[in-house]
Amino acid sequence: MTDSDNDMKISPVKGTRDFYPEDMAGRNFIIDGWRNVSLRHGFEEYDGPIFEHLELFTVKSGEEIVEQLFHLKDRAGRDLAIRPEITPTLARMINQRVNSLPRPIKWFSAPRLCRSERPQRGRLREFFQWNIDVVGTDDVLADAECIFVAVDYLREIGLGPEDVEVRINSRSLLSDLLIEQDYSEEFLPTIFTILDKRDKQPEDVFEKKVGEIAGDEQRKKWLLELGRAKGKEGFDTVRRLAGERAASIAHLEELEKIFDYLEKFGAADYCMFDMGIVRGLAYYTGPVFEIFDKGKELRAIAGGGRYDDLLQLLGGPKISGVGFGMGDVVLSDVLEARNLLPTDSRSLEFYLIDADPAYFPRVLELVGQLRRTGRNAEFSYARRSLSKQLKAASAANAGYAVIVGKETEEQNAVTVKTLATGEQIQLQLESLTSFGIR
Amino acid sequence: MTDSDNDMKISPVKGTRDFYPEDMAGRNFIIDGWRNVSLRHGFEEYDGPIFEHLELFTVKSGEEIVEQLFHLKDRAGRDLAIRPEITPTLARMINQRVNSLPRPIKWFSAPRLCRSERPQRGRLREFFQWNIDVVGTDDVLADAECIFVAVDYLREIGLGPEDVEVRINSRSLLSDLLIEQDYSEEFLPTIFTILDKRDKQPEDVFEKKVGEIAGDEQRKKWLLELGRAKGKEGFDTVRRLAGERAASIAHLEELEKIFDYLEKFGAADYCMFDMGIVRGLAYYTGPVFEIFDKGKELRAIAGGGRYDDLLQLLGGPKISGVGFGMGDVVLSDVLEARNLLPTDSRSLEFYLIDADPAYFPRVLELVGQLRRTGRNAEFSYARRSLSKQLKAASAANAGYAVIVGKETEEQNAVTVKTLATGEQIQLQLESLTSFGIR
Repeated sequence: MTDSDNDMKISPVKGTRDFYPEDMAGRNFIIDGWRNVSLRHGFEEYDGPIFEHLELFTVKSGEEIVEQLFHLKDRAGRDLAIRPEITPTLARMINQRVNSLPRPIKWFSAPRLCRSERPQRGRLREFFQWNIDVVGTDDVLADAECIFVAVDYLREIGLGPEDVEVRINSRSLLSDLLIEQDYSEEFLPTIFTILDKRDKQPEDVFEKKVGEIAGDEQRKKWLLELGRAKGKEGFDTVRRLAGERAASIAHLEELEKIFDYLEKFGAADYCMFDMGIVRGLAYYTGPVFEIFDKGKELRAIAGGGRYDDLLQLLGGPKISGVGFGMGDVVLSDVLEARNLLPTDSRSLEFYLIDADPAYFPRVLELVGQLRRTGRNAEFSYARRSLSKQLKAASAANAGYAVIVGKETEEQNAVTVKTLATGEQIQLQLESLTSFGIR
Repeated sequence: MTDSDNDMKISPVKGTRDFYPEDMAGRNFIIDGWRNVSLRHGFEEYDGPIFEHLELFTVKSGEEIVEQLFHLKDRAGRDLAIRPEITPTLARMINQRVNSLPRPIKWFSAPRLCRSERPQRGRLREFFQWNIDVVGTDDVLADAECIFVAVDYLREIGLGPEDVEVRINSRSLLSDLLIEQDYSEEFLPTIFTILDKRDKQPEDVFEKKVGEIAGDEQRKKWLLELGRAKGKEGFDTVRRLAGERAASIAHLEELEKIFDYLEKFGAADYCMFDMGIVRGLAYYTGPVFEIFDKGKELRAIAGGGRYDDLLQLLGGPKISGVGFGMGDVVLSDVLEARNLLPTDSRSLEFYLIDADPAYFPRVLELVGQLRRTGRNAEFSYARRSLSKQLKAASAANAGYAVIVGKETEEQNAVTVKTLATGEQIQLQLESLTSFGIR
């Protein structure tokens, strides 16, 4: 070994995260919550490989995603890529078993994803993303259930309607409204983009942009009113703007039905209608939604909607689905700002202590016994004084210090000290493994 | 969309796995167990990014690992690689905080790893691996604790000493024994390789190979006896072969001390001494161990040992550590062969049923209430007959069917049917969210 070897320090890749135990506590809090809440809403977990054949991602995804792919080759020279999202994998897996899977398919996943982009606030090159999907039904009850599971999760981790909100729209409603006003199909993406940026720029910029594309003053007024429609009054506005148009009214009623279901589920307090939500990705065809911190200071916490053609695009049959993705990066920022992200990485029950090194073999036996019966138990490798071991027990955040000494040999008993209160009792050894279990 | 789009089916990459919900149940069983058992042994969880700078892996790892790297580049052209193991990341993370981390560092991880190799039985291109490490102590108590946590896990998931065994040796003991017999340092890897393959080939091939390198007949006899030493008698053999050599005797006593600790922890029934364990990887310097299915029909389930120079090689200080890795692929095979791998992907508590579609809104309200209080509840999107909904409840493996009907409106009550027994009771609504909780 040379000196230069010794000087070499290799840094982590920019835009990735090291999870030290205190960081891991936060990550597990977020991801365990995703899993628990998904399960209680009747979703089953799936996952695919971290890399796929490159073409799985290039065939369907928008250009933005293709640009962000981490591309690799296998030994035979085949083109592979690390997954930037899991939806193509979901579609591939469903297609592989399309005839045997019972429908609707209610699946969730919490994959690790990578995108080769410039790291910035709320966007990293590696992150985790909760994915919820209901595939195989046109019923908007599924759309409502997806939103409910997201809301239930947010409430579970401590975020109330005063912290976050779900903004809901319908792309089919928006499209039909515009087409009925004689805006051409090809022109819709331009309008979508302007609406999508409505809240990211000053009011007058939005108004100016709408003016540039509206046609005349009357159409500008119409489009501005439409684009600003939100909340309960928004529904009235849209109904008025739609007039007698049957297709638009049908989509509006569909959207109102979703709100009605959300009311029944007890999730409506988080939700509002907002014509400014269109979702960038091309494959959404019906209701769409995004979740933001209240005040919209950060990027979206989650986004999703209904997709009708996705499986077909990936070689499968035409089956409709609805789903969303919620990343861990913006969510962590929201939680951290509210002091809701735990950093305590272990929950130790017992810390075993010898009153004298002579009793250390007995400590090891009791540690073995406790752990083998499923209890969390720790001890000090180094033989130290009783008081130092007690300090170590407190530092390790243990519930109980168990002191092994003369009474252990003579009376088969240990002293158990509850560290939070200082309370001390003598306990017979046969009661130790069940101690503290209610 | 063209016809050829419709025909296109993209397959998963060979050597990777799709985890459908029934597969995910097995994966979660394995990985949740890793986490639970690690925590009760006082280990804290960490993780790093899935990719690192390429040089982190090339600077230290054996040639085999470097060949198996999945290499990628970021947008700026920097060389990155998907992690084939997590130890380099562990070393990097410890080095970054070497002065602030309290020692010993007891950390675990369950990373996803990728190796670009030819897929074969027990070896895939993507897998999960439990990593346990104790860093910052020379005390062989740490070596014993690492083995104990592995044994405790195996017992926890249903594998007894009749299914699996831990074979333990010491590379420093082996080296010193050989060097004291005047085998040169440079020659040791050749002998190590022959010992490592001892059980993978017929007895006479082993004997022939030992004969070719031993020197003379007497040295061959000595080397054969050493190489075959195992079990309790193995210690006596080694003690006799070592004679008066102090260094060897010291290492032997160290190894016996590990077995003594394992006895105290209650893990010795899984463990045996075996001179045939040397571990391929170059960085092990002291005690080493591997875990096999009894009968050694499969590849190793786990392998580990003490490394003294690893952190230094990666730019840090000279801190000794001990640890092991346990992959999920061979382990899955062992569990599956014994029918110990669960495939049930959900544990549904309640399935809500309407006695008539008129009560469906009430079903949604109760589903909402149950889920919001943390209970698992499911229902059918489609309105179907009572008997069909009951069938769906059984198919979904629910604990209770909850029937919402006239008595719900009139008496605020539901009928709860325990699906396993067919038992039916009437329950007041206010008791529903706590029903079945002991």
